[in-house]
Amino acid sequence: MVNPFFKNNGPFKISYILRLLNLTKYDIDESLGVTDIKDLYTSNINEITFFHSKKYKDIAKSTKASFCLTTENLKNELPKNCIPIVVNNVLVATSLVTAKFYPESINDSFDETVFEIKDTKFRDKIKFGKNILIGENVKIGNNCTIGHNTIIEKNVSIGDNCLIGSNCIIRNSFIKNNVKILDNCVLGKHGFGFFPNDKKNIRYPHIGFLIIEDNCEIGSGSTIDRGSMSNTVIGKNTFLDNQIHIAHNVKIGENSIIAGQVGIAGSSIIGNNVKIGGQAGISGHLKIGNNVEIAGGSGVIKNISDNSKVMGYPAKNIRDFLKENK
Amino acid sequence: MVNPFFKNNGPFKISYILRLLNLTKYDIDESLGVTDIKDLYTSNINEITFFHSKKYKDIAKSTKASFCLTTENLKNELPKNCIPIVVNNVLVATSLVTAKFYPESINDSFDETVFEIKDTKFRDKIKFGKNILIGENVKIGNNCTIGHNTIIEKNVSIGDNCLIGSNCIIRNSFIKNNVKILDNCVLGKHGFGFFPNDKKNIRYPHIGFLIIEDNCEIGSGSTIDRGSMSNTVIGKNTFLDNQIHIAHNVKIGENSIIAGQVGIAGSSIIGNNVKIGGQAGISGHLKIGNNVEIAGGSGVIKNISDNSKVMGYPAKNIRDFLKENK
Amino acid sequence: MVNPFFKNNGPFKISYILRLLNLTKYDIDESLGVTDIKDLYTSNINEITFFHSKKYKDIAKSTKASFCLTTENLKNELPKNCIPIVVNNVLVATSLVTAKFYPESINDSFDETVFEIKDTKFRDKIKFGKNILIGENVKIGNNCTIGHNTIIEKNVSIGDNCLIGSNCIIRNSFIKNNVKILDNCVLGKHGFGFFPNDKKNIRYPHIGFLIIEDNCEIGSGSTIDRGSMSNTVIGKNTFLDNQIHIAHNVKIGENSIIAGQVGIAGSSIIGNNVKIGGQAGISGHLKIGNNVEIAGGSGVIKNISDNSKVMGYPAKNIRDFLKENK
Repeated sequence: MVNPFFKNNGPFKISYILRLLNLTKYDIDESLGVTDIKDLYTSNINEITFFHSKKYKDIAKSTKASFCLTTENLKNELPKNCIPIVVNNVLVATSLVTAKFYPESINDSFDETVFEIKDTKFRDKIKFGKNILIGENVKIGNNCTIGHNTIIEKNVSIGDNCLIGSNCIIRNSFIKNNVKILDNCVLGKHGFGFFPNDKKNIRYPHIGFLIIEDNCEIGSGSTIDRGSMSNTVIGKNTFLDNQIHIAHNVKIGENSIIAGQVGIAGSSIIGNNVKIGGQAGISGHLKIGNNVEIAGGSGVIKNISDNSKVMGYPAKNIRDFLKENK
Repeated sequence: MVNPFFKNNGPFKISYILRLLNLTKYDIDESLGVTDIKDLYTSNINEITFFHSKKYKDIAKSTKASFCLTTENLKNELPKNCIPIVVNNVLVATSLVTAKFYPESINDSFDETVFEIKDTKFRDKIKFGKNILIGENVKIGNNCTIGHNTIIEKNVSIGDNCLIGSNCIIRNSFIKNNVKILDNCVLGKHGFGFFPNDKKNIRYPHIGFLIIEDNCEIGSGSTIDRGSMSNTVIGKNTFLDNQIHIAHNVKIGENSIIAGQVGIAGSSIIGNNVKIGGQAGISGHLKIGNNVEIAGGSGVIKNISDNSKVMGYPAKNIRDFLKENK
Repeated sequence: MVNPFFKNNGPFKISYILRLLNLTKYDIDESLGVTDIKDLYTSNINEITFFHSKKYKDIAKSTKASFCLTTENLKNELPKNCIPIVVNNVLVATSLVTAKFYPESINDSFDETVFEIKDTKFRDKIKFGKNILIGENVKIGNNCTIGHNTIIEKNVSIGDNCLIGSNCIIRNSFIKNNVKILDNCVLGKHGFGFFPNDKKNIRYPHIGFLIIEDNCEIGSGSTIDRGSMSNTVIGKNTFLDNQIHIAHNVKIGENSIIAGQVGIAGSSIIGNNVKIGGQAGISGHLKIGNNVEIAGGSGVIKNISDNSKVMGYPAKNIRDFLKENK
């Protein structure tokens, strides 16, 4: 799939990419072109991908990418169609290459493309408040309302019957049907992703987007970041209370209920029918199963299997926790 | 009391309400009228109320309501003047009936009634910033200031000497005298109340309001929801720090001090002279006594009696907690 | 140093200050003038300072102030050049005197001095969005951008290459170069400081400011309060994620990384190269050393020495915590 929101500055010759990574002696036909950068799953012929952890060995074996940023230890897992490019730090290299393809994905400067809604095609289509700004590449379905002072920045698609509150800022997001966004939300901005550096941290690109499926509700003052190399997803009919923070690449399933001030760190995956009590926190890169219940205030630092009820910090079986804490 | 903020679409015949609840065989004079829905305390003759838990047995015995949504087990607690209407789920039925009386209490769409403040009667009365919107049924006392971009939506009463910050959104609230609301607050919106449903959750109505008594201060970025069937109340001279979330129906007493990022879940009652440290959380439907001190970061999951000092998760006597966690 | 932001209403005769504090019988030449109030370190001849805790004994010995609010027990620690003024509560007295010198430092009413940016000298200098307000005494360097609806209130200095998001409110702050402030932040407002009083709490003045050093990033929805008698400081190249709350007088070092929803209470000092996980909380008046790692969700209630890794509530050595919580 072509990235729907960011302009691809490619193609680049592989020689250009090698120079960018300071890889001078490389036995590749340097005139080969590279059209895009994607993850192992979705990349295709003439594209470059990245492979930095054994966890992804099985996917790596069948990648269709023509090039792959990887390490000495992992390079032999790649198929013949894919030329390994060995680097010291795969994520830094991926970041550098992605930044060349998508330079606009690094900083979310304010959207200069906006017009006042009364000067757009939406003027007669939707019900709207005062002082609303709409960026370029915005789609809005039927029967929607948008509250005062809200900024629908560039690259937003909103379905039918959506209710967007006041003072919201939304960018790079697909909002499906019957979704309700309450006041003061900031949605679809880049996440907290960078490589620490003593002089000046290096931000990594966020070329993913935010998807909010049908029938969701997002509470006031919440922030949901878009994905970096993948997407952030809120599943169908999932309700979020106020002041919730959802980091980049998080995927939440359907019919889940998340109470106020919960925080979910980057890349965690939450199942369907999950209930999370107020102020609970979930660390990054975890998998929370279906039908899980997490008590308010808990701190989850490892995977939770389906149908579990957990509580405490670190979160454990709720019965054990309550027995130990009578 | 007549609901001050929501238009009552009643009266309805009791036959209409029975049909709404799919109660076909009922031995009531179907032509009887029902004028309003209220809780057990406040309901009156010709009104309907609800009774869903033994906890309210004593109040139920003396309700003045003419009808009551209740269960088979509880119906005999009601007095003779009150006809029980037995339903499977009292709260769902209450929600459905309330939604008929007050359809506008379900969704907080943006306020379409607003005017720019310079086009209102407040133009010469108060000191105000740029881009301020005022909805209908708004009262503002003497010597108040309102900051830039703030939206005083419909149904707000503000007393004398109040200082409202910038970027605030306020609805359905009584703000008394000498109250200070800092920037970016969202006050008086509906709470996180709904009945989960696999296809599409069903929101329940919020016909209550938010009351902020004299001399209070509410910190930046805080959210305080209005009540559902009762009200949310912040008592006199109580100070809230930044980024606090107070859910629907919570009642906080006088002279209390609540530090940053605290969250209080729905329907909990907090006493007078209570001190709550930063990031503490209080579960729903609890009673916290007077003069209680709750250490920062604590998670309170049961009632706390007067004059207690607690800490930890679950919060316990602070001396015991500190002894166990040397 | 003269206070850069607040107008000093002094000098006052010492007799005026004594009357203010109800100190009627005092053996001082009542015609002596007092030009300013500052802390023990920075105060100078003809100025008044305050000394309320043994912790500051060594600094007190060499203060250059001519007057010092202090207690009976501490007064003998002061040098000969400094006349002790003994009061019951040093902080309350300091607050009263400071309020006389700087009456505007007590309440952050909305900034009435603002103009729309297009009517200011910044019109041609920076790139800006819609509906931006700029207060008096604002400086902005080269190559900056300011997003929609943002209010740069009075007394703000912004360096070069800064990126200020939309819906932000900033006051009384020095923002250096290459700083990125994301959307919806409230920066530089007074902190949560007051003396509880049964009738009406007494706010204490905040005459300090907020300093954000080069290369920092502040996440969406964050609140950072300015200092009361000292300043709040975010060190070079420190990154804050979304929904963080930093209270008054906090000082954070360089190259630190603070994840989402963290809260740091008043006057704590955080070192360089510190990493703080999401939702962690740090109590007030603590010292966290350099290279410290604090796990997400932890509650820190005592000082942490350099190079420590801590976790839990109360936070302890991370290995011990994990061993005890297998």
